Amino acid sequence: MRQTHLLIPTLRDDPSDAETNSHRFMVRAGLIRQMAAGVYSYLPLGYRVLRNVERIIREEMDAAGATELLLPALHPSELWKESGRWDQYGDELMRLSDRQGRAFALGATHEEAITSLVRDEVKSYKKLPMTLYQLQTKFRDERRPRYGLLRGREFLMKDAYSFDATDEGLDRSYRSMYDAYSAIFNRCGIRYLAVEADSGSIGGTDTHEFVALSGIGEDTIAHCGECGYAANVELAQSVPPDAERTTAARADSGQPENPAAGPQLTDTPDVRTIAQLTAYLSIRPAQIIKSVALLVDGKPVVALVRGDRELNETKVKRLLEASSVTMMSEADIAAKLGSHPGYIGPVGLGPDVTIAADEQILSMTAAVVGANEPDRHLTGVAPGRDFRIDASGDLCTAVPGDLCPNCRKPLLLDKGIEVGHVFKLGTKYSEPMRATFLDDTGKPRPFQMGCYGIGVSRLLAAIAEQHHDEAGIVWPSSVAPFHVHLIVASSRDDTQTALAEKLYDELRRAGIDVLLDDRDERAGVKFADSDLLGIPIRVTVGKRAAEGVVECKRRRDSEAVQVETGNLTAYIRSLDV
Amino acid sequence: MRQTHLLIPTLRDDPSDAETNSHRFMVRAGLIRQMAAGVYSYLPLGYRVLRNVERIIREEMDAAGATELLLPALHPSELWKESGRWDQYGDELMRLSDRQGRAFALGATHEEAITSLVRDEVKSYKKLPMTLYQLQTKFRDERRPRYGLLRGREFLMKDAYSFDATDEGLDRSYRSMYDAYSAIFNRCGIRYLAVEADSGSIGGTDTHEFVALSGIGEDTIAHCGECGYAANVELAQSVPPDAERTTAARADSGQPENPAAGPQLTDTPDVRTIAQLTAYLSIRPAQIIKSVALLVDGKPVVALVRGDRELNETKVKRLLEASSVTMMSEADIAAKLGSHPGYIGPVGLGPDVTIAADEQILSMTAAVVGANEPDRHLTGVAPGRDFRIDASGDLCTAVPGDLCPNCRKPLLLDKGIEVGHVFKLGTKYSEPMRATFLDDTGKPRPFQMGCYGIGVSRLLAAIAEQHHDEAGIVWPSSVAPFHVHLIVASSRDDTQTALAEKLYDELRRAGIDVLLDDRDERAGVKFADSDLLGIPIRVTVGKRAAEGVVECKRRRDSEAVQVETGNLTAYIRSLDV
Repeated sequence: MRQTHLLIPTLRDDPSDAETNSHRFMVRAGLIRQMAAGVYSYLPLGYRVLRNVERIIREEMDAAGATELLLPALHPSELWKESGRWDQYGDELMRLSDRQGRAFALGATHEEAITSLVRDEVKSYKKLPMTLYQLQTKFRDERRPRYGLLRGREFLMKDAYSFDATDEGLDRSYRSMYDAYSAIFNRCGIRYLAVEADSGSIGGTDTHEFVALSGIGEDTIAHCGECGYAANVELAQSVPPDAERTTAARADSGQPENPAAGPQLTDTPDVRTIAQLTAYLSIRPAQIIKSVALLVDGKPVVALVRGDRELNETKVKRLLEASSVTMMSEADIAAKLGSHPGYIGPVGLGPDVTIAADEQILSMTAAVVGANEPDRHLTGVAPGRDFRIDASGDLCTAVPGDLCPNCRKPLLLDKGIEVGHVFKLGTKYSEPMRATFLDDTGKPRPFQMGCYGIGVSRLLAAIAEQHHDEAGIVWPSSVAPFHVHLIVASSRDDTQTALAEKLYDELRRAGIDVLLDDRDERAGVKFADSDLLGIPIRVTVGKRAAEGVVECKRRRDSEAVQVETGNLTAYIRSLDV
Repeated sequence: MRQTHLLIPTLRDDPSDAETNSHRFMVRAGLIRQMAAGVYSYLPLGYRVLRNVERIIREEMDAAGATELLLPALHPSELWKESGRWDQYGDELMRLSDRQGRAFALGATHEEAITSLVRDEVKSYKKLPMTLYQLQTKFRDERRPRYGLLRGREFLMKDAYSFDATDEGLDRSYRSMYDAYSAIFNRCGIRYLAVEADSGSIGGTDTHEFVALSGIGEDTIAHCGECGYAANVELAQSVPPDAERTTAARADSGQPENPAAGPQLTDTPDVRTIAQLTAYLSIRPAQIIKSVALLVDGKPVVALVRGDRELNETKVKRLLEASSVTMMSEADIAAKLGSHPGYIGPVGLGPDVTIAADEQILSMTAAVVGANEPDRHLTGVAPGRDFRIDASGDLCTAVPGDLCPNCRKPLLLDKGIEVGHVFKLGTKYSEPMRATFLDDTGKPRPFQMGCYGIGVSRLLAAIAEQHHDEAGIVWPSSVAPFHVHLIVASSRDDTQTALAEKLYDELRRAGIDVLLDDRDERAGVKFADSDLLGIPIRVTVGKRAAEGVVECKRRRDSEAVQVETGNLTAYIRSLDV
């Protein structure tokens, strides 16, 4: 295509609202424009990248035996009420009424829509397994849309849903999608981890996130370079490096201990935080038991972790098999625990309060805890002896230096962008929505379902986030908007223009996607734009046009090569991009 | 693909709500399913047809030099307020609020969105002309969604917008889109007319509708088989066949006439309609002037047409250069005209009432009109002499038997489905939205815009409407979901199954799209389903499988041909489908 009449509004300066490289370069390269917070237009070049990504997704989904369809964006509220999500989904679900006052949701995801369709149309086990997918616009009213395409309110998604007769069938469908996703992200040039994840509001059991590693990612992943273990830090199991040294640490603490003495009430006026307590008592954080007051499914829970660790609420939720965890208010702390913020502790709590302990505190013998009265702590406290423990497990968020739960090598913690997600839903939707098939004995059974999403808009941003330099984007050739950027250094030079036109025709006839910069602009402007756009190969028709020699440079290289035009097509084909 | 695990839920019976062939066959063939009134899912086979149509559209748009992009569906209300359409568009525009209470529209069309984008990003005449298009979901809260995909509330549209520096440029862009549309509809196998049309609420001046001829169409087209004249009946000019015979008709009327006598007050008790009046006075409808009381932009207008013709409100609107025409209420008839329903007439109306007359009545000399008092008419009335005429022109709806305004051959009236629409918008949006570019003298000027739409969902239905028989759809090969339907007559016969598998591989290797019916169903069921689906070529592996002979039949033929499997690929390629 010719750049003259193409809408590629490049910008010299970074947009003021762009905090990430993908956002600033996608805007500066004229790929996207914002219409409202979290709502973007894809301009012609951005749309070409999008279509390339969509093509890769379609090819891999089709190869995995999935079939494409297209569900509507307007969902009658009745559908979401069947699954219960009309009430559960909250403000993120965009809602509207039609002229007759009937309520609709704008599809944030399509579990209800597809379950309803398959319930009505698939009656027999003979049609199973069946995996259906779509590439479609989703609407979610994010509280904080940001980072350009990374967290939008209207965005493109590939969502797939598998229907199986049995658990084993679901395992196979899940594995097949897992493999397809790996192939898709590899082809898109994404460096990713497939990590164990929390199933969030969609629900279900087994689930993996595909996370593109990036410093601006909103997820933190704990992963092991040795054995490949990887999990969202919300869930990651880890072994504290000093786990085997608890006794030694205790002996080493420098504080007098008398395990037989039992808890001592100690004045700690205005001492509320771990930092204040360690300073006041001259102890280490690891000698303190931190007590966190929670409401778990509405019931009072005190969760205990060592003073040097952070409580992970997701792990509390899983340990207690609960669906909601919130912090207790000051009023609730008084009413339900008879305690005071800053001085909460497990000793003397009533039987109506569940005490959940991180495993690390089980071996502590002379810990410091809040005394449940203002300005007082207890020292010399031993779990089990001085207070009961109702449930225990791993309740801490992994930190750098923790060890891999599988192989005991140090875990790495890295940030990343969730670009894909695979879930085993089981019967989470098919049961409440009564979506059943007849098995080979004629008995109705609920479908075993899986769901599988790729954030297509977000994937574009993740690619740009991983593939750029200071001058702009460096697209992987699989998704690049064009393969070759053909630049006429001086559009007012007839020899250059004539040669460029000839090469433009030749390359296109050879089946190579070419963008011709035929604009009447200075060469410097054209080169700067070309770097911004990030097309893999740049061919410049310049001063040696009369000799039939052009300059050829990969976007990722700094040095150009002089190529005779007779060899140009072959040379371009030979380049590894 | 294999039919076993493919979601093609065919139905034996017509759905109860389907009034049209396209609707009933698209549902019965398992192509679409309704999720809410006017909201449909495209199942895998329907989606394949859709993608084929989209491919044709993209190829022709790209060939015409248009560039694809993708605009959002969520439009901030501010954008629609800039053009004034936030208030004008009415209930058809679907609206919602985000979590902060900001108002949004769901894009019903994208003039505002594209004008805003181009206003911000295109500054110079050097970038012009520029035509941008998208394939995108539109939302319109139709009062009466119906006919399946023909009138939906969520539907797919291809919309394009051209930006030019001059009128002449707009003419060229318009023509280019007009030609691309003709190519698109031809390739989709649509029999269509490109007709002069009313510009409706989008506004603008020059406009053509592309109308697929069909008995179920909601538009009526007057067209001339001789010279190619075609116009929506709302606008169609026509010449009454007796236009040149007015005098003769008058002489022939059988009623005494005395032009000099002037109006005679005549008792016509309880005679309100043309039919009653002709019976009561023993005259022909053509001797009556029908007076229709209207509010045109809120002002009183009495429109006059001959008693045998129907008033066309669109023509009144154009004659008076107005934007709204409504019927006057009984109260308004009394208050503003001092008259009575059934007895309205032009004689004696005050100067505040505009009298608009169809040309046909100008030559009448002794007409019958309402007397503006109950149970009375005036006879012997002469326009001009007995009442004034403020404006005159063609105000009648064309009827069969009328003559072509160009060549005086009889006009045909046919119903049709609007599948495309091209508009010259001029500066209708660029002026109020202040979208300007700098011309070659550095002066800011508003863009000259055109807009061009194809109802993609509706086009699918129009194709099915034009291409079916009593057994199902007969897809044109350009859009068919598959090229060949390969059927195993008996899936329990190993010889048949083995041969079918071999042919399935061979045909696919030859690049032919094949659907293999490998289901364990009776042959009769498979043939009935195959007719419903309408794939252009059916190959049946049946009793002669052992001899290496299969049956081959085009969907549109009744007789099958026996083909040796060695020749099958070549035979299929040779078929004209």
